Amino acid sequence: MALAKRPLRVDVVIFAIRDKTLQVLLWKRAEAPFRGAWSLPGGFVGKDEPIEDAARRVLEEETGFTEEVYLEQLYTFAHPKMDPRGELVSVSYYAVATTSRESPDGTFHAARRAPSLAFHHDDVLRRGIHRLRTKAEYSTVPLRFLDEPFTLSDVQAVYEVLLDRNLDKRNFRRKMLALDVLEETQEKRRTGAHRPAQLYRLSSRRTYLLKERGILFPF
Amino acid sequence: MALAKRPLRVDVVIFAIRDKTLQVLLWKRAEAPFRGAWSLPGGFVGKDEPIEDAARRVLEEETGFTEEVYLEQLYTFAHPKMDPRGELVSVSYYAVATTSRESPDGTFHAARRAPSLAFHHDDVLRRGIHRLRTKAEYSTVPLRFLDEPFTLSDVQAVYEVLLDRNLDKRNFRRKMLALDVLEETQEKRRTGAHRPAQLYRLSSRRTYLLKERGILFPF
Repeated sequence: MALAKRPLRVDVVIFAIRDKTLQVLLWKRAEAPFRGAWSLPGGFVGKDEPIEDAARRVLEEETGFTEEVYLEQLYTFAHPKMDPRGELVSVSYYAVATTSRESPDGTFHAARRAPSLAFHHDDVLRRGIHRLRTKAEYSTVPLRFLDEPFTLSDVQAVYEVLLDRNLDKRNFRRKMLALDVLEETQEKRRTGAHRPAQLYRLSSRRTYLLKERGILFPF
Repeated sequence: MALAKRPLRVDVVIFAIRDKTLQVLLWKRAEAPFRGAWSLPGGFVGKDEPIEDAARRVLEEETGFTEEVYLEQLYTFAHPKMDPRGELVSVSYYAVATTSRESPDGTFHAARRAPSLAFHHDDVLRRGIHRLRTKAEYSTVPLRFLDEPFTLSDVQAVYEVLLDRNLDKRNFRRKMLALDVLEETQEKRRTGAHRPAQLYRLSSRRTYLLKERGILFPF
């Protein structure tokens, strides 16, 4: 069989939690096809460029995020009719940005009420939300949404947004501390008339899978 | 940037459980590069061919499996130095075959003691084993290893192989039946002097995620 060759792209779902809502970074397309439509940030992979480098490049160059951001491959799409410009391969990634990150070119939108997206990007976004929600059930990936230092209430708020339900405060705190993934800082934060809250940062020895610590789910 | 185009491949990790061991189907390469080395079955994706169809084609044409086999996309590799024939994109899948399936061209090997593989296939296999093991912790994918009809002991044996530990029989049976993913058949199987064992098949309404039924892990 003659080898069919295709251009290779990366498309990146950049999530953040803002205003107690899961948000996703979108761009308004300035050019055809789908001119004026919203889409995920992305770009073509150069010759001799490893695909992971291309994903990191899109994340860093085009959104202005330069610090370490959690990035994970999501799914690969290669349907002949996917792009009116011709056959291509789109490898999607998702990234977890902290709340304080801003993008020079894009706009954050509520992920579950996002506008209809160009190309196959609705599918990519749907898979990204599903993956992230699943990871919230069994991994510490959600902690990557937090700007350091943070309180245990901040951590609980992240899990509540992702799982879309309220969690029991005492249970959550007990289990989260038992995971041994948080480190106490020397500081506390005072909010209103409340008792000052202990501030934490991520431990460098944080585990990825909650069950490695024998924690049963759901919280 | 000029668009770099690459050939697109699929490579498939075909798992089965045989002799109480997780096994993987391998081929001995007849041609360069890596002539004589073991590799995963795979092939190039044709022009206008959706990638999922290509993966299913490799699974069906080249292994002789024609019936419905569980197939899931695993990971995409696109490193410039991956293949001596030049840059390409390899999208890997894994498949769950039942014990009775035979392959005309390949040989099953113990997955955790497989020989060193050609190209980047060691990486693919390692990711496949990891994904399958993770799914055994929270999904019903492992049931797809079973030829129907099967006993509850058969089911337990599959989970024990994947999780690599012994499970308590009473607990396992209680939780597995509570999942409501198995259907009793009219038959029983008699083995030696034991009481005849009830035979089951997969329910058509089987859920994918165990936690949808509120089952806590580990078993």
